[in-house]
Amino acid sequence: MADEVLFEFLHMEMVSHVYKEQQSSKGELDNKDRAVCVSVLEGMGFRVGQGLIERLTRDSPSFKDELDVMKFICKDFWTKVFKRQIDNLRTNHQGTYVLQDNKFSQLTQLSNGKQYLDQAPKYLAFSCGVVRGALSNLGLDSVVTAEVSVMPSCKFQVVVQKL
Amino acid sequence: MADEVLFEFLHMEMVSHVYKEQQSSKGELDNKDRAVCVSVLEGMGFRVGQGLIERLTRDSPSFKDELDVMKFICKDFWTKVFKRQIDNLRTNHQGTYVLQDNKFSQLTQLSNGKQYLDQAPKYLAFSCGVVRGALSNLGLDSVVTAEVSVMPSCKFQVVVQKL
Repeated sequence: MADEVLFEFLHMEMVSHVYKEQQSSKGELDNKDRAVCVSVLEGMGFRVGQGLIERLTRDSPSFKDELDVMKFICKDFWTKVFKRQIDNLRTNHQGTYVLQDNKFSQLTQLSNGKQYLDQAPKYLAFSCGVVRGALSNLGLDSVVTAEVSVMPSCKFQVVVQKL
Repeated sequence: MADEVLFEFLHMEMVSHVYKEQQSSKGELDNKDRAVCVSVLEGMGFRVGQGLIERLTRDSPSFKDELDVMKFICKDFWTKVFKRQIDNLRTNHQGTYVLQDNKFSQLTQLSNGKQYLDQAPKYLAFSCGVVRGALSNLGLDSVVTAEVSVMPSCKFQVVVQKL
C-alpha cells in the first residue's frame, strides 16, 4: 500500500515543484510556460519509462512486430506500472494507436467527472513520457499525448514515427 | 515490483532535476547551492511524510509518549515506507534518537562500501524529510539528519525540538 502512495505523493510534489519553479522565474504562467513544465515532466517520465521497460522485458521473448509491442504495453506493462490493463486498444494500422483506460490510476485520486479537467494535463505529462520511454527502448520512436473528457477515464494517443 | 522501481526511478529523476536546475542558474555548485538542493528535496519529503503518516495511523490507537511515537516510526512506518524495520534505536532520553538501518533501501541500489560516499546526501535528503514530516504530524517538531559511513548502512539522527 505505502508503495503506491509513496509514488503518488512524490509525483504530486514533483508536479507542484516544477510548476512553482517556473512560476518563480516567470511570474504568471502563460501557455508557453505551461508547455515548458509539461515538457520537463514528460522528459522525466521518458527516462523512467526506459528504466522500467528494461526490467520488465528482461525475461520476455522478442516481439514479432509493432502491434505485438503495443499489446505488450497495453497488458503487461500497463498492469505493472498503472495497476490495470488498457480497456480498449484501437489502431488505424498505419502507426496510430489509441489506448483507452477507463480508470486511469493517476487520475482516480484526483477527480471524478468534469471538474478540474483543466488540471489533468499536469498530471498526465509524466505518464505520457513513461509510455514514450518504454516504446523508445523497444525500438519505436513515437509521440504520445493524452486526452481526457471525463475523469478518471483517459485516452492515450500513440503516433509511431516512421523513419 | 514495478511499484518500488517506479518510486525509485522517479526519485532519482527528481534528485537529478533539482541539482540540474540549480546548476543551470548558478554554474558550478558550491556548498551553499548544494544546501539549497538538499533543502528543496527535504521539503518535498516533508510533505510526503505528512501524507503517509496520516494514512498509516488512521487505524492506530494514540501514542503514550515520545518514545512510543519513535517506536512506531522504527517499526510500522519504516516497514511500510522503507521495507524493513530499523535495526537499532538508541536514545539519550532527552529528545535525541539515533535510528540505525543497516541496509537502507534508498542506498542498496547505489553502492556497497565506501565508494560514492560523497553522493549519499543527495539521496538521503528526501528520506530525512519524510521522517521529519511524519513526526511533525504526530506532534513532534524535530531536526532529522542522516549519516553514512559505509553504504548501504545509514544512521538517522532525530533531535526533537522542545518548545
